[in-house]
Amino acid sequence: MKIAQVAPLWERVPPLSYGGIELVVSRLTDELVRRGHEVTLFASGDSQTLANLEAVYLRALRLDQNVQDYAVYQILELSQVYQQAAEFDIIHSHVGMTALPLASLVSTPTLHTLHDSFTKDSRKVFSYHQNQPYVSISNAQRQINLNYVGTVYNGIEPLDYPFVAQPQQPPYLVFLGRFSPAKGPQHAIAIAKQSGWCLKMAGKVDVVDSKFFEQEIAPHIDDQQIEYLGEINHAEKAELLGNAAITLFPITWQEPFGLVMIESMATGTPVIAINLGSVQEVIAHGITGFICQNYEEMATMIPAALKLTRQTCREHVENKFSVNQMVNGYEAIYKQIIENRINLINAYIQTASIQI
Amino acid sequence: MKIAQVAPLWERVPPLSYGGIELVVSRLTDELVRRGHEVTLFASGDSQTLANLEAVYLRALRLDQNVQDYAVYQILELSQVYQQAAEFDIIHSHVGMTALPLASLVSTPTLHTLHDSFTKDSRKVFSYHQNQPYVSISNAQRQINLNYVGTVYNGIEPLDYPFVAQPQQPPYLVFLGRFSPAKGPQHAIAIAKQSGWCLKMAGKVDVVDSKFFEQEIAPHIDDQQIEYLGEINHAEKAELLGNAAITLFPITWQEPFGLVMIESMATGTPVIAINLGSVQEVIAHGITGFICQNYEEMATMIPAALKLTRQTCREHVENKFSVNQMVNGYEAIYKQIIENRINLINAYIQTASIQI
Repeated sequence: MKIAQVAPLWERVPPLSYGGIELVVSRLTDELVRRGHEVTLFASGDSQTLANLEAVYLRALRLDQNVQDYAVYQILELSQVYQQAAEFDIIHSHVGMTALPLASLVSTPTLHTLHDSFTKDSRKVFSYHQNQPYVSISNAQRQINLNYVGTVYNGIEPLDYPFVAQPQQPPYLVFLGRFSPAKGPQHAIAIAKQSGWCLKMAGKVDVVDSKFFEQEIAPHIDDQQIEYLGEINHAEKAELLGNAAITLFPITWQEPFGLVMIESMATGTPVIAINLGSVQEVIAHGITGFICQNYEEMATMIPAALKLTRQTCREHVENKFSVNQMVNGYEAIYKQIIENRINLINAYIQTASIQI
Repeated sequence: MKIAQVAPLWERVPPLSYGGIELVVSRLTDELVRRGHEVTLFASGDSQTLANLEAVYLRALRLDQNVQDYAVYQILELSQVYQQAAEFDIIHSHVGMTALPLASLVSTPTLHTLHDSFTKDSRKVFSYHQNQPYVSISNAQRQINLNYVGTVYNGIEPLDYPFVAQPQQPPYLVFLGRFSPAKGPQHAIAIAKQSGWCLKMAGKVDVVDSKFFEQEIAPHIDDQQIEYLGEINHAEKAELLGNAAITLFPITWQEPFGLVMIESMATGTPVIAINLGSVQEVIAHGITGFICQNYEEMATMIPAALKLTRQTCREHVENKFSVNQMVNGYEAIYKQIIENRINLINAYIQTASIQI
């Protein structure tokens, strides 16, 4: 198949540190190439890929001081993609609603993976284009009525996450993610204090979250019980997760997937999470972690979580959340969409012939 | 002709106070309807128009506390326009670069009026789509190489601006516009102080400009020599301009048009301006105002400007910058684009026939 992959431009593909969507797009794209597809990746020019790279701009926008209006580059990317639409069998968009007005204007079908949750505003655009084909990254994500052609869970490459049979001593809890109220780092701190455990935290602080970080997080960082390691790269992340006794996922929002849960389990570290969004689909309760109703309960589940088998956590990811599984899912959906399109055209030609 | 007018959604059409683009779109749309065209206006739902209104959202986005992501509504608007593209002979876009990726995907032509100046970022998208048909609102605006099909100056309805034969006593200078460094209110204050004249100022302060206003403007407001009247409505604006002795236009940027210059001249008040952007095309130097090389020179031209004939200023607008003139310009361009399209199709059919 001739496939266009349309990535966000904020981070390179794959990302240097944080960037869940860019990581998924990278793994998907490279595996599709390995399986013999002809793939064009639309992404920032510093991206690294086995596919044919169409560089929209020379580097990831986040790192470029010269760029003032990010929307420009999204428009430029979509221009490039849809001007060349006829050259692809399918266009796979990872850029959300911005691709929607264009998708219905060309004959090449676009598959839209929903990487975010819906907002009060954004659901209006999605609902307007509800007949476009969508992939949800969890069943829980399907908060509005759209033409969902499947759920494809995000996949990671288990080899990228070395398995750690025994957590480090002295043991610690870990929180990894953006420092925004939605991800719940404030609850991770409360859980550490309630249980007396050490907590290591890492992740980026966006400008919009700087006040939250200063007020709710920074005062608790004592470099003894509560540590903040800043933004870390992939190798550091895999090590931090693998050496942890337990990963906390104390979210306060309807997480559409939650990549860090599978990254943690891949290294062998079980996850204690709040029952919101995708959590029930990602964690096998009582086997690879625990799903709790509130933050106090999360603290009380630590002893039970320590008894879980780390090898089973790893296998759970290998079986359900590998790149291979993910690419199997997307490949099947691409085929189905393209076949449906051909059947539709044939039916149309047949009807037209009968009328003649 | 069946014409779609695509307006920004930030203000209603026509705007309640500030909103140059929305004012121009309103006048153009209504006059096209009066001339017998079938016009559909895509705009906020509180807009008032003689055309068929397609309301994208119930009210102007600026006034709606519930809206958090404005981009959503722009996407929704363009979705609606281009889904219905086949129903129009021509689509006239006033929303800048966001319409560009869509315009080339449908057979109905889109005419793009350039209401803004180009930025380092935005010029990339325009250059990518350089073959689309563009209207510049001044010749000076043509900073990059595009397929310009004409310059159509913005037009106002002279009846909306009562002519004032004699300025108010005691006399004053006026500054009207956004309080941003680009519009130069800081220079207006300096000119008033240099010349000893009173200055009345009005216009909105955008959030991004609040620091500039606090630091560079507010300290000079003494309600004696320097007055700030806040944001004013149309009637107040016409009165403020008409009663002024002279309007100052001390811009620091390449103004693409500068509606306030023609609004002022329509009331009879001459304009002293800096030689940037469109100014040379809008002011008749020595007749309806003076065009200066620096801000000190502007102050020295006040005595000469007082001697200009106010009736001539009015006539200058009636002859060159009326709604009628503007609609004549656009009507001719619509016809030309549609004819070119038909000729192209006919040539294509002929070539195809010969080949058969």
